[in-house]
Amino acid sequence: MKTPALSRLFSPKAVAVFGSVKPGRMAGQIVTQLLEGGYLNPLVCVNPRAEAPGQYPGLPALASLDAWTEKPDLAVIAVPAEHVSGTLEACGRAGVPFAVVLSAGFAESGNQAGEERLKELARHYNIRVIGPNCAGIMHTPSRLFASIENRALPGRIAFISQSGAVGGAVLAIAGLRGIGFSTFVSYGNRADIGEVELLHHLASDPATDVVAMYLESITDGRAFLAAAAAVSREKPFIIIKAGRSRAGERAAGSHTGSLAGSDAVFTAACRQSGALRAEGIEELLDLCSAFQDLPLMQGGRLAIVTNSGGPAILTADRAEAVGLEVAEPGAPLRAALSEFLSERCSLGNPFDLTVEASGENFERALRAVLEHDYDGAIAMNVGTPFIDSRKLAEGIAAAAKDPAGGKPVAAVFMAGEMVATGARLLAERGVPLFPTGERAGAALAGLSRYASIRRRINRSYRAQPAVSAALRTRLLPFGEPVLEPELVEFLNSLDFPLPPAKFAATPEEAEAAAAGLGFPLVMKVVSPRVLHKSDRGGVLLDIRSAEQARQAFLELRKVFAGLDFRGAMLYTQLQQQIELILGVKRDSQFGPVVLLGAGGVLTEMIRDVSVRIAPLDREEADEMIDELTVRPLLEGFRGRPRADRAALAGLIVRTSELACVYPEIQELDFNPLFAGPEGCVIGDARLLRAPGAEGEESQSGLR
Amino acid sequence: MKTPALSRLFSPKAVAVFGSVKPGRMAGQIVTQLLEGGYLNPLVCVNPRAEAPGQYPGLPALASLDAWTEKPDLAVIAVPAEHVSGTLEACGRAGVPFAVVLSAGFAESGNQAGEERLKELARHYNIRVIGPNCAGIMHTPSRLFASIENRALPGRIAFISQSGAVGGAVLAIAGLRGIGFSTFVSYGNRADIGEVELLHHLASDPATDVVAMYLESITDGRAFLAAAAAVSREKPFIIIKAGRSRAGERAAGSHTGSLAGSDAVFTAACRQSGALRAEGIEELLDLCSAFQDLPLMQGGRLAIVTNSGGPAILTADRAEAVGLEVAEPGAPLRAALSEFLSERCSLGNPFDLTVEASGENFERALRAVLEHDYDGAIAMNVGTPFIDSRKLAEGIAAAAKDPAGGKPVAAVFMAGEMVATGARLLAERGVPLFPTGERAGAALAGLSRYASIRRRINRSYRAQPAVSAALRTRLLPFGEPVLEPELVEFLNSLDFPLPPAKFAATPEEAEAAAAGLGFPLVMKVVSPRVLHKSDRGGVLLDIRSAEQARQAFLELRKVFAGLDFRGAMLYTQLQQQIELILGVKRDSQFGPVVLLGAGGVLTEMIRDVSVRIAPLDREEADEMIDELTVRPLLEGFRGRPRADRAALAGLIVRTSELACVYPEIQELDFNPLFAGPEGCVIGDARLLRAPGAEGEESQSGLR
Repeated sequence: MKTPALSRLFSPKAVAVFGSVKPGRMAGQIVTQLLEGGYLNPLVCVNPRAEAPGQYPGLPALASLDAWTEKPDLAVIAVPAEHVSGTLEACGRAGVPFAVVLSAGFAESGNQAGEERLKELARHYNIRVIGPNCAGIMHTPSRLFASIENRALPGRIAFISQSGAVGGAVLAIAGLRGIGFSTFVSYGNRADIGEVELLHHLASDPATDVVAMYLESITDGRAFLAAAAAVSREKPFIIIKAGRSRAGERAAGSHTGSLAGSDAVFTAACRQSGALRAEGIEELLDLCSAFQDLPLMQGGRLAIVTNSGGPAILTADRAEAVGLEVAEPGAPLRAALSEFLSERCSLGNPFDLTVEASGENFERALRAVLEHDYDGAIAMNVGTPFIDSRKLAEGIAAAAKDPAGGKPVAAVFMAGEMVATGARLLAERGVPLFPTGERAGAALAGLSRYASIRRRINRSYRAQPAVSAALRTRLLPFGEPVLEPELVEFLNSLDFPLPPAKFAATPEEAEAAAAGLGFPLVMKVVSPRVLHKSDRGGVLLDIRSAEQARQAFLELRKVFAGLDFRGAMLYTQLQQQIELILGVKRDSQFGPVVLLGAGGVLTEMIRDVSVRIAPLDREEADEMIDELTVRPLLEGFRGRPRADRAALAGLIVRTSELACVYPEIQELDFNPLFAGPEGCVIGDARLLRAPGAEGEESQSGLR
Repeated sequence: MKTPALSRLFSPKAVAVFGSVKPGRMAGQIVTQLLEGGYLNPLVCVNPRAEAPGQYPGLPALASLDAWTEKPDLAVIAVPAEHVSGTLEACGRAGVPFAVVLSAGFAESGNQAGEERLKELARHYNIRVIGPNCAGIMHTPSRLFASIENRALPGRIAFISQSGAVGGAVLAIAGLRGIGFSTFVSYGNRADIGEVELLHHLASDPATDVVAMYLESITDGRAFLAAAAAVSREKPFIIIKAGRSRAGERAAGSHTGSLAGSDAVFTAACRQSGALRAEGIEELLDLCSAFQDLPLMQGGRLAIVTNSGGPAILTADRAEAVGLEVAEPGAPLRAALSEFLSERCSLGNPFDLTVEASGENFERALRAVLEHDYDGAIAMNVGTPFIDSRKLAEGIAAAAKDPAGGKPVAAVFMAGEMVATGARLLAERGVPLFPTGERAGAALAGLSRYASIRRRINRSYRAQPAVSAALRTRLLPFGEPVLEPELVEFLNSLDFPLPPAKFAATPEEAEAAAAGLGFPLVMKVVSPRVLHKSDRGGVLLDIRSAEQARQAFLELRKVFAGLDFRGAMLYTQLQQQIELILGVKRDSQFGPVVLLGAGGVLTEMIRDVSVRIAPLDREEADEMIDELTVRPLLEGFRGRPRADRAALAGLIVRTSELACVYPEIQELDFNPLFAGPEGCVIGDARLLRAPGAEGEESQSGLR
C-alpha cells in the first residue's frame, strides 16, 4: 500500500493557512513558524478580514481561497470547529489535495457528527486529511513547519505522534540534545490519514533513516503489523505505546483471555514486526540519538573505556541488565593495551585509564578494543578540574568517527561545566553523548537488538495478513450451546490429540464404553448448565472397572438431575506429564493470537507465557517454546524424559491455524496440555464462542 | 558508636593545606575552593617554598606548619605519596586532630606498605584520617569546601562516596538541578574513617535531613547494617551499590550458596535496615530532590493532574510499575471537580484539565484531589505556545507549598524553552521539578516507600548485631569428615524435623532397622567419598519389606565397595508435599544469612527466593514466606490442604539461629524441605563446613 502521494503533502509547492492571525491565535502562529522556518514557496493567509500577521505586512492575505492565483497543495486549517466544513468545501472546490486540520472540537470532545461530516467531505472532494485535533506537520528537507510545536532541527529521523503534546515534548527535548528530524506528524484524531499509511510512506522515504512513534491506540492491528514490518525491514522503528498499566485489567473468560492481555499482544506485535519498544520519552530519544549517529552493533560484547572506575561499574551493571555482555578481554588485547597504557591502568573491562588518561590513550584504547574483542564501546570521561575535556573529546571523536570495523562508540561526559568544552566538541563531530553511562548502555543495547532483528528479517518478519488470507474461513460445525461430545468430535476430526473418549447417555452405555476404553478412566458430566464441572463435583477420577463406571454414571445423574443432565463423557485417564496451557483468543485489535504457557499450579503464580499473533510457522512456534521459563522441564530437567518438542511445535502451529480458520472461536484453551516423550495430549479443552448476531456468548468445554 | 568528634572535622576553626599551589596543582585548587567558597577562619598554605597561590598574595604561606601561630583542626594533604608520611608526622607533632589525604599512590595502586605506614602514623599521633586517594570533603554550613570537586549548593542532604569521580558527577548534576548539600565526603581508600563512622555521625547530624551514598564495597557488613539502620530510623537513606552484575557470578557449593549471591545479601541488608536502593545517579538525585523539598507520601494513591493526556498516561504506566496506585476518584471528588472544571476535562485519573487549564484550575484541582482520595500528586504542564507557563506554575506552587494534609506535589514541565519561565518560578518556590512524568512517579514512589519504612521502623529495623551477640557460639559436635549419621543425630538433638531414621552397618542391621521403621523406606549409602549420592546410584527408593532392605544393603555394599563404604541410612519414605528449600550460608561481608525458596524443579528455573541476614524473629520469617512467588501453594492453592505456616516460620527462625550459634557452618541446605498441613519435614540436608585451620573444605549430607 505505497502512497507516494504523501510525499506531495510534505513538499507542497504552495500553502494556504486558514484561520485568525491575530496575536496568540493558531493560524498566525503557523504562518510565523512557516516563515521563520524558511518556507520559500507561495503562502497565503485566508480569513474573513483578509489579514496577514502584523509582522509580515506584505504577505498575501485573502477573504477567500478562490481569489488566489496559486493552486496550493496543502491547506492548513485552524478555524473554529464549526467553520471547518465550510473551509474544507472551499478547499475541495479549489482542488486542494491535502489538508492539515488543527482545529479541535471533534470526536475527542464527543462531536462524532462533526467528525463524520469532515470524513464525508474529505471523501467527496478527494482531499486527504491529517487531523483534526492535531498539532500539525513538519518536513525539514522542504523547510515546511506547519505546526504549532517547536521547530525540529534538520535530521533523518521521522517522528509521528498520536498526541500533539507528546510530540511537542519530544521535539523540545530533542532540540536541546541536537537530535534532528526529517519529518514530524501529529495526526490527532486520524479521521483520514493514520499511522498505517504514514508508516508505509516513511518505510520508503529516502529522507528518513529512523522512524519513531508515540501511540495510544490502533484501529486495525493486522494493518499496523504489516506497516510496522515494512518499516523494520528498511530502518529502525521505535515505538512508545502508552496505556501499558491499564491494559491488563479487563476481566476475561479463560486463562488465555486473561494471560494474553492487550499489552502482551502488542508486545508480540512489536516482536513479530521487528519494532523496538521504548518505555518513555527519554529512552526513545536515547535510541534516536544512537541510531542517528552510530552504526549498528553487530553483537553483544561491550567495552567500557573510562577515566574513572565508579561510574563505569554502574554502566557495566546496567549494560548487563539490558542484555549486553561486559566480557573480559583476551590475551592479545591485553598485550596490545599494555604497550601504551601505564601499569596503573586496568586492562580488564571496564578499561580504567585512570585520571591520567590522555586523548591519545582514549583513541588508541578505543581502537584496540574494537579491533580485538568487542562489538561496540562506551567512552566515559568523568571531569575533574585537572583534565582538559577538549583533548579527551578529540581523541574519542577520532576513534568514534573512524572506528575499527565500523563499530559504534558512544560517549559519556559527566560533571557539567567541567566537561562542557569537550561535550560541545563531541556534539559538533556527531558523537552521541549521554548524560550517564547507564543510558548509553541501554542505547547501545538497542543498536545491538536491531542488528539482530536485521539479520533475521527475511526469515521471520513476514507480512502476516497475507498468510492469514491463505487460510479459508469456515463455520464451527456445532450449534448453541456447545456440548462436550461435539467439541471432542470436532477436535478429533481435525486430529487434535485427545485421549480415547466415549459418550454415554445411560448407565448401560457407560458400562459398555468403559469396557471398550480400558482402565483407569475419568468420567465427566455433560450438561449445558454446568460450566465448571470440577468445582461442582462433575468430574470423577480413577474409575477402575465397568461396574464402577456404571455406579459413577448413576451418581452423576443423581447429582445433576435438576441441571439438564445429558449424560457423561468417559476418557482414558492420562498419566500426568509436564503440564502446559495452549490457547487462542481473538484480540479486539489483532484478531487471533496464540498463547503458550506453564500449566497447572504455575499458570497463575508465575505467569510464564509466550504470546504471538496467529498464524505461526514452525520456527515461530519453536521461539515460543524457547521463551518459556519452564522450558528446561521439556528438555529432560534432572534426568527426566525429554518431551517431544516437534510434536508440541506442530500442535502450536495447527492451533494457530485453527483460530484463523474458525473466526467464531473467541477463546479456546487446552488446559492442561500434557507434553511427554510420546507427544502431547489435551487434558481438557474449553471453547468460548464469539458473540453471535444476538450478542450472546456461550461456553463449552471438556471440564 | 557515636563519634561527635566528627563535627569538628566538618567545622574546623583553622585549616592548613599541604602541597604545591602552582597553577593546576591540587593544593592550589583546594585553597581556591576554600576561599571562593567563603571559608573565613584562618587558613595557611604549607609547602617547601612557602608559596600562596598567585591570585591570593596576602595569604599566609609557610615552609613548615611549626611556624604557624594558629592550631589547625584540619590538615588537607595534597603532597606526592612519598611525602605523606612526613606531612602526617608534622601534623601529629602539631596536635592536628583531622587530616584529609587527597594524595593517590597507596593501596589503590598496590602500595600496601605506604597505606599501612599511614595507618600506623594516624594511630600513633591520634590523627583521624579521611582518604588517602580521595576527592576531599565539604560542609556547607561552615562554608568548608576542602575538595577538588564542584562546590555543592547549600542544602540539607549529605552525600558520601567511595568514588571521588561519582561524587563529582553527582555534585555537578545536582548543581544544575538546584539540589543542595549539607555535607559531602569522598572517603577514598578509607584507611581510617569509613562509611560506618560517617553514617553514625550523619544519623544524628542536625544539619542533615537526607543521607545518600555511593558504595562499591564494604568492610564489615554487620557494622554497616547497624549504621544503615541508625540512619534510616532518623532520615531517608538512599544507596547506590555498584557491582550488581558481577556479584552473582562466583561458583558456589550448594543451592543456598548460589541463590544467595552477594548482591541478594546486600539487597536483604537494605531491606532490613530500611535503606532505599537506587539503580544509578539519576534515580539517586531524583529521590534526593523529592526528599529535599517534599513531605513523605503516607500511602500509595497517586493523582496525576495534567493539561495533556499522552504524557500523563506514560506517567501512570510508570507509577504503577514502581508500586503506586493510579486509582480512580470517588463520587464526592468528581462532584467537587465538576464544580469548576469544564465538561471537556477528564474527571478520571489522570485528571486532564486540557490545553485550556488555568493556574487557578490547577491549584483547585490539586487541592481537591489531595483533600479527597489521594496521598500525593504530580502536576504536569506540557507547553504549547499559547500557554503562559508562569501562571500555571503559580497555581501549582500555591497548591504544592500549602497542600491539603501535608501531602507531596511534584511538578513536570515539559517542552524546553516554552515552559522555562514557569520552571524557574517553581524552582524558586522549592517545588521539585522532573524532566518527565515517569521520573516524577518513581521519585514519589520513594517518598511512599520511606513513609512505610518509617511506620514499621520500631518493629523490624532493629540493631542486628546486638541480637546476634545474644546467641553464644558453639563448635559442631562432629569431626572431619562429617558423615550422614552424625549430621542426622546432630539435627535430631536440636529437634529439627527429620523423618525417622536408622543407621545400618551390616545387612542384618539393615533388615532389623527396616522392620523397626516401617514401610516404604529410602536407603542411602554412607561413605565419606560419595558426595552426590543420587547421581551415583547411592539412593534406593520404595523399599517395601525387610527382605528388600537386606537386598538393597547388599547392592549398595557391592557398588560402593571400593569407595570407603561405611553402611547405609534408612529413612521412612516421605509423602511428597510442597517442596521448598531452606538454607543458611556465611556471607563474606554479612556473616550468616538465611535463604528460603521454591524447591524441587522450580529452584533453578524461577529463582524464587527470599534472603535475610540472620538471626531473624518470627515476624521477619513471616515476611520471607510472604515474599515467595509460590506462597499460594502454601495457602491451599486450588483446594489443596494449607501448609502449617507457623511451623515453617518457626523452623526458619531456628535455622537462622543455628547459623549464628555454629560459626563453623559455611553452608547448610534443607533441600527439599517438605511443607504440609502437619508441619515441615526435612527431605535432605547437606552441610558444608567453613574452611578449617588447614584451609580445607568438607561436605557432608544426607544425599
